[in-house]
Amino acid sequence: MNTVEVCFSTELFKVYDPKGKIVVVVDVLRATSVICTMMHNGVKEIIPVKTVEEAKEYKDKGYLVVAERNGEKLDFADFGNSPFLFTKEVVDGKTLVYSTTNGTNAIAVGKDADQVVVGAFLNFSAIVKYLKEQKKDVLILCSGWKGKFCIEDALLAGAISGSLIESGVFYTKCDSVNASIDLWAIAKDTMDTYVEKIAQKHRLKKLGLDDVIGYCFTIDITSVVPVLKDLLIVPLG
Amino acid sequence: MNTVEVCFSTELFKVYDPKGKIVVVVDVLRATSVICTMMHNGVKEIIPVKTVEEAKEYKDKGYLVVAERNGEKLDFADFGNSPFLFTKEVVDGKTLVYSTTNGTNAIAVGKDADQVVVGAFLNFSAIVKYLKEQKKDVLILCSGWKGKFCIEDALLAGAISGSLIESGVFYTKCDSVNASIDLWAIAKDTMDTYVEKIAQKHRLKKLGLDDVIGYCFTIDITSVVPVLKDLLIVPLG
Repeated sequence: MNTVEVCFSTELFKVYDPKGKIVVVVDVLRATSVICTMMHNGVKEIIPVKTVEEAKEYKDKGYLVVAERNGEKLDFADFGNSPFLFTKEVVDGKTLVYSTTNGTNAIAVGKDADQVVVGAFLNFSAIVKYLKEQKKDVLILCSGWKGKFCIEDALLAGAISGSLIESGVFYTKCDSVNASIDLWAIAKDTMDTYVEKIAQKHRLKKLGLDDVIGYCFTIDITSVVPVLKDLLIVPLG
Repeated sequence: MNTVEVCFSTELFKVYDPKGKIVVVVDVLRATSVICTMMHNGVKEIIPVKTVEEAKEYKDKGYLVVAERNGEKLDFADFGNSPFLFTKEVVDGKTLVYSTTNGTNAIAVGKDADQVVVGAFLNFSAIVKYLKEQKKDVLILCSGWKGKFCIEDALLAGAISGSLIESGVFYTKCDSVNASIDLWAIAKDTMDTYVEKIAQKHRLKKLGLDDVIGYCFTIDITSVVPVLKDLLIVPLG
């Protein structure tokens, strides 16, 4: 039996012990949904960077850069953070540099974990299947919003951890897991209305960027499992 | 209209802005339930201290000291952390020093807030009534467990914030509020079984200290509103 835990914010990651575990990074609106879309459409590798300065340095070196803060594309960047931008024509075979508001510090997260994978509703079944096969403890890290708890990430954490526990080979002693499973149970059949409770939905709407929400809550458009390898995000395998 | 927010862990308090707000500190199992019990039974004032060292210094000065770590009474202390210890006979008119595992750093919390009050299920209606009367923004701070999210604190946060919003004079844009309200809606009529999901229930049971749980989830045994004043916890008024 393996354990599954959920951490509700990158600010809380330090009170968890990722050693020997697979960490599933989750940022439904929108980073991990964007990463899964890029990878589904053939991106070669993604270089995750934390600061605007790093993103700018890569731009100066000639890289294609995706960068947003507070939902909006940064001036110098090639792309903002909508998954719809990253079609096969645009990203196939390319290397992209990626920096977002709640962008997880990949170095910090990856340092002690056994492996870091990227989860979204878009690759839900692929992630669950992969985690079940590994026979390792799992820690789902919700990116949150500027350190705060986010409903959308908790819902995905609940969907994933619930599936793992239902399989009978995972158990939990983690309150965040039990709460997430309950929230997902309430939301899953009523997402059209439940989404109104999500603050990020309203932030994106204000910016005219909420057209992506239905897409980001779509289950299983892809079977890719993006994984952190030598500080790059690449397809598994 | 005033806002209500919920912060799920003392480790996340720094990403909230308590300025001008009433902060409701919540630690259902067991600190804020104990404090409400003490005050209901006539304690004069409580000196909250963060470290074991501080608690020991007070003991050396002759104060009555309540101190636990990981659920268990510390050797030098007069009392552990069970609310049943603090009868009228024991505490009436007394000053107590209080230090617990997840004991909130009262200085840090009180520094910028307009006021800090202590919430439990035991004084639920009194807290809600008081908050409605103040016409100020409210931030409910869940103590959590060693920085992690706790279901029991989220349930009380949901009960309080739900009542405030139902009254029509509070609103929220906070995902933690909406999630807490949903969790309380699931749990409230099934607490006897729901309590099994709570990690702290199992920690206390292991220590033989779970006899307090039913009591700590009892609504309205008292109408006291404990409040932080000059770094002491005293009854409101």
